[in-house]
Amino acid sequence: VEQLHDTDCSFCRRIRSRADQSSDLVCEFPHSIVLLGAWQYYEGYCIAICRHHVRELFELDKLVRHAFIDEIALLGEVLASVFKPRKLNVEMLGNQVPHLHCHLFPRSAHDPDHLKPVWVAIDRAEAAEEERRRLTGAKADRGSLRERIRAELSRRTP
Amino acid sequence: VEQLHDTDCSFCRRIRSRADQSSDLVCEFPHSIVLLGAWQYYEGYCIAICRHHVRELFELDKLVRHAFIDEIALLGEVLASVFKPRKLNVEMLGNQVPHLHCHLFPRSAHDPDHLKPVWVAIDRAEAAEEERRRLTGAKADRGSLRERIRAELSRRTP
Repeated sequence: VEQLHDTDCSFCRRIRSRADQSSDLVCEFPHSIVLLGAWQYYEGYCIAICRHHVRELFELDKLVRHAFIDEIALLGEVLASVFKPRKLNVEMLGNQVPHLHCHLFPRSAHDPDHLKPVWVAIDRAEAAEEERRRLTGAKADRGSLRERIRAELSRRTP
Repeated sequence: VEQLHDTDCSFCRRIRSRADQSSDLVCEFPHSIVLLGAWQYYEGYCIAICRHHVRELFELDKLVRHAFIDEIALLGEVLASVFKPRKLNVEMLGNQVPHLHCHLFPRSAHDPDHLKPVWVAIDRAEAAEEERRRLTGAKADRGSLRERIRAELSRRTP
């Protein structure tokens, strides 16, 4: 499988440097690496970054696309099992970093905004410190969130 | 392939009634139907509704998931080719209708909010009529938008 890297791309640098080994890295799949996201009000929120530097899903070779999507699906199943969300939100945007990646937000029924995409609240959070604190959640719990996801992943992958 | 239907699901009814034949239906794939979305400020915005009534991507059988994602990828490639967006946003949310579907938003560099997800502006539009008119775009163009997408699709599918 061809691995393309762009030295100007922050996600490519992140994949290569493995700087996240000690902090936000949840797991390493063959076609993606998974990081715990910032907005842990959405408990279990992860970002799967494709190892291949492409802008769009359709630019991946078909078999690589299938493998990448199977990693997203496995991660989604694991997050659903651990966090019991009302719904998962699975999003490939790339407006700020145009390197293929996928946000997985477990959405809780207790979220008063559960009928809306997360971005309405996150946009508020970017302007207001109190909302930012609410949506990033307790820093202390990040390690245990990561461990719970990892434990369920390893239960499902032989 | 198993086809599950839920008589209480508005998307299942939409698929069965084929009520959209004359209006918003862009095309029918083996595993999804594609509708032209409401917010045509994002020129070419489509929604691919999976024919199978599942809540989450991971609930699809692996081969069906691959086929569904290939339909999303083909549609994305077609939208990119027709509308030349700066970036595509590909989103499976389902907070309001929990039947698997995928939003494809072509994002233009001329959109002053192009670094943000569409939902911040759409949330504004739901409260303010002027913003709603801006984001739904010109009604008169919907037929020709649909035709441009169809033409490119048929060029790519033998």
